[in-house]
Amino acid sequence: MNFCPNCGADRIEKIIPPDDNRLRLVCQNCQTVHYRNPKIVAGVLPIYGDKVLLCKRAIEPCKGLWNVPSGYLENKESAEEGAAREVWEEALGKVEITGIHAVYSIARISQVYVHFLGNLIDGKFGIGEESLECKLFSEEEIPWSEMAFTSSTFTLRRYFADRKAGVTQTHLGNYPEEK
Amino acid sequence: MNFCPNCGADRIEKIIPPDDNRLRLVCQNCQTVHYRNPKIVAGVLPIYGDKVLLCKRAIEPCKGLWNVPSGYLENKESAEEGAAREVWEEALGKVEITGIHAVYSIARISQVYVHFLGNLIDGKFGIGEESLECKLFSEEEIPWSEMAFTSSTFTLRRYFADRKAGVTQTHLGNYPEEK
Repeated sequence: MNFCPNCGADRIEKIIPPDDNRLRLVCQNCQTVHYRNPKIVAGVLPIYGDKVLLCKRAIEPCKGLWNVPSGYLENKESAEEGAAREVWEEALGKVEITGIHAVYSIARISQVYVHFLGNLIDGKFGIGEESLECKLFSEEEIPWSEMAFTSSTFTLRRYFADRKAGVTQTHLGNYPEEK
Repeated sequence: MNFCPNCGADRIEKIIPPDDNRLRLVCQNCQTVHYRNPKIVAGVLPIYGDKVLLCKRAIEPCKGLWNVPSGYLENKESAEEGAAREVWEEALGKVEITGIHAVYSIARISQVYVHFLGNLIDGKFGIGEESLECKLFSEEEIPWSEMAFTSSTFTLRRYFADRKAGVTQTHLGNYPEEK
């Protein structure tokens, strides 16, 4: 932030405002405090029979690697609306969300993933504009070494473990894991 | 946003950028797209014996009404770190988080609440700067008609129902509820 979005002055400084305990971007001209907060990445693991749908990313970061369909939640969306929208945008698939599977924080980059499980309706999907390829994988077929993000690996490993154990639960995760 | 935080020009317009499908704030001078995303409100329902800890808000909005200790997640925090921090700031209590209780979206105002359950360590608490009063309530004592936010009511009702049923689960909610 070079200029104050409120008054246009180039007097943004990182200071701790009165009644606060953190460094904030504060305009020294109009005194507006410009807060910055973590982003939510919403997604669904679409399930069809014993397979799950993954997308190969057509865009950076991690172009060419596989991912659980996910993306930044937009303003005026619920978490599940955003998650279902991402499945449509990335894989042209529609899902019926069945529950929350994971809340996975990456504090270093101020992201919180919210991953749902959902049934891929009629098993139908295509290839969205942000994807090079979309494909249903059985557990044995998952390309573990070609996953884009640790959030997807986290979600997939726990999904298959839960399925074996016959349970559904919501997992709390962090990167790095020992955090 | 009156001025571009990047170049300082007063030429911010709401347009749909190329390769996008939503209106964004775009600087017509430097072409920077300024994204806006929902905020995460993280909190914990602190539990001690058969009681839960609530805080009476000392600040607007909803000053004087009761709330599950919660607040905006900060950059570089995990969801559970932010949630535990809020219990400390609002009630001077320390919690051991035991699980995710609710993910509750209020799409209209672009907020997603993430509420955890946690054990209030040693039953100790005080009154944080943002609170007028902090108090342990049994189910019968909850001031239902004096709750600040629907997210707290959602979390409390489901907590007591789960406790009666002897289950722990993660609840997905929206305001308004019929959404």
